[in-house]
Amino acid sequence: MLAASASSVLGQASANIAAGRAQPSPLAPSEIVARAPKADWTEIAQSDLLVMDLTPDAKGKPRRVVIQLMPPPFSQGWIGNIRKLAAARWWDGTAINRVQDNYVVQWGDPDADDKAKAKPLPAGLVTVPESEYTVQADHTLSGMGPVVHEPDVRQISGIDRYAPATGFAWGWPLGLERRHGRFSARDLKRDPQSNVSLAWPVHCYGMVGVGRDLSPNTGTGAELYTVIGHAPRHLDRNIALVGRVIEGIEFLSSLPRGHGALGFYDLAQGDERTGIVSIRLASEMPTDKPFPAYEYLSTESQSFAAYADARANRRDDFFIRPAGGADVCNIPVPVRRVK
Amino acid sequence: MLAASASSVLGQASANIAAGRAQPSPLAPSEIVARAPKADWTEIAQSDLLVMDLTPDAKGKPRRVVIQLMPPPFSQGWIGNIRKLAAARWWDGTAINRVQDNYVVQWGDPDADDKAKAKPLPAGLVTVPESEYTVQADHTLSGMGPVVHEPDVRQISGIDRYAPATGFAWGWPLGLERRHGRFSARDLKRDPQSNVSLAWPVHCYGMVGVGRDLSPNTGTGAELYTVIGHAPRHLDRNIALVGRVIEGIEFLSSLPRGHGALGFYDLAQGDERTGIVSIRLASEMPTDKPFPAYEYLSTESQSFAAYADARANRRDDFFIRPAGGADVCNIPVPVRRVK
Repeated sequence: MLAASASSVLGQASANIAAGRAQPSPLAPSEIVARAPKADWTEIAQSDLLVMDLTPDAKGKPRRVVIQLMPPPFSQGWIGNIRKLAAARWWDGTAINRVQDNYVVQWGDPDADDKAKAKPLPAGLVTVPESEYTVQADHTLSGMGPVVHEPDVRQISGIDRYAPATGFAWGWPLGLERRHGRFSARDLKRDPQSNVSLAWPVHCYGMVGVGRDLSPNTGTGAELYTVIGHAPRHLDRNIALVGRVIEGIEFLSSLPRGHGALGFYDLAQGDERTGIVSIRLASEMPTDKPFPAYEYLSTESQSFAAYADARANRRDDFFIRPAGGADVCNIPVPVRRVK
Repeated sequence: MLAASASSVLGQASANIAAGRAQPSPLAPSEIVARAPKADWTEIAQSDLLVMDLTPDAKGKPRRVVIQLMPPPFSQGWIGNIRKLAAARWWDGTAINRVQDNYVVQWGDPDADDKAKAKPLPAGLVTVPESEYTVQADHTLSGMGPVVHEPDVRQISGIDRYAPATGFAWGWPLGLERRHGRFSARDLKRDPQSNVSLAWPVHCYGMVGVGRDLSPNTGTGAELYTVIGHAPRHLDRNIALVGRVIEGIEFLSSLPRGHGALGFYDLAQGDERTGIVSIRLASEMPTDKPFPAYEYLSTESQSFAAYADARANRRDDFFIRPAGGADVCNIPVPVRRVK
């Protein structure tokens, strides 16, 4: 299947060969994405876009971060809370309180730990159980197409240190567990879906999760963080992931690092916190200026298969030795503004 | 072996049990490091420290980045060049020209691509062949203690997407290849070293490498980069690694992102490049103010084994489900100033 998809997407390379060029240059992953047909892209609902406006930077430039919330069946309890917090304008006037290098940026109520000063939460937030960190495949993943989709079976069959298998579905990177025993290459080739019993989103760069206190606390969603370093996959299944930054991550990843414990800003060293002007769903923003539409490369598409294969086997001119594999966080799902 | 080392290092937890506390809290990785005995630390030679001073930040604060160069047998050709470039003060007045989010920060001559304006390189730099991206284990790794050192054999035996096995030696994360066929758990348990035929440093967060043009160009060492995102392991064995940032990486990772191709700064949008005041070996800096000494946690020590095990199996209170594994880049080698 992969060969077929690669040859269709890599049409230009084939054309070069046909034209008699001795050394056609294979397409880089970005070129495969740029040439993917419109049908291979899926538009993101405006109601799944969370728009965070920070205070302007030192030069007065606006700083806007756009987050895509996860679709069902993942993390819907927390995401319901996040929708309520945004509708209540709860985050307006809060701040980015923690920036830990090679780990996370975290935002919410700066006084959350001080009961006397903490900002009251809106009514109606739900308490979500830890069981929601994963999704039972039996009843929720059925009828939605193949769950597992990676460059080749070798890469799926268990060579990950944090999950029995990894894959992509509905545009998201997932950890996967099998119903009985281990995944085998044959299982995955024959019928990937029927063998998956549990699935969960994984902590790649840019993913957004829910801060929490010690178990059984699972957090409300009021305290959020995003990954700005090497994927901290040990957090998988220990904390709720609710989305990912799809635009403007640089306004978070390039913030000054905090020098208190865990990268919280140490106010004794001067207040380096960045203010949050507002967080809104795109669907609830003023309608006089339409918010841009975004789309992701469908992880079930032929283009994604070719892209993932090219990430795992870099054939473009720079590379002298393709790796022959890629970890799930080194295959970021392409997202762009709709043209 | 691991159990023994863990019990010795986790002495405090054992003491808690002995004292009758029902729920001793296991030590977090950082606590294991803090309690490691002095003998488990190895001091870094001042001649292996490369000190980069950037222009002060907007508030006038100094920005110093300290890089540890790799020891033999790795990358010595390029490192020899780097020593010559530092001695010639070649980098003084150059700049950081590229900051690509979730990838790299790169510095060197801003006019390197313009033959008329490019800064001449000092005499005596060597051209290093691509074969030096890896090290033949037969003659270079012998007699230096165990090459492979990870929490347990399960984690070493092949579950990495970029190398047949990974491990640590002399304080550095490595990819490893076996002499004949695959690594087996028994091989690694019995005699890890004799089965290793090739070793190479890997691209974790903070590692420093040598920018290059297309193969067979391998770069001189004048153009350097450091990783500021998820480990781009596809670069392993495609490019030379020469060291890692051990202090001040935030002065690189928090720089504004470039908006030209590949994250180079687009000068049409205003010059956001950061100037480099100087790059020197610590051993060649003015002696009126002694440069701090640094040490790393020996990767052959019992403390490192316990630390790596704790990174792979987080037992501290926050975690409800230890991963049971950790990828080589999620076990950063602890480095600190000598107290």
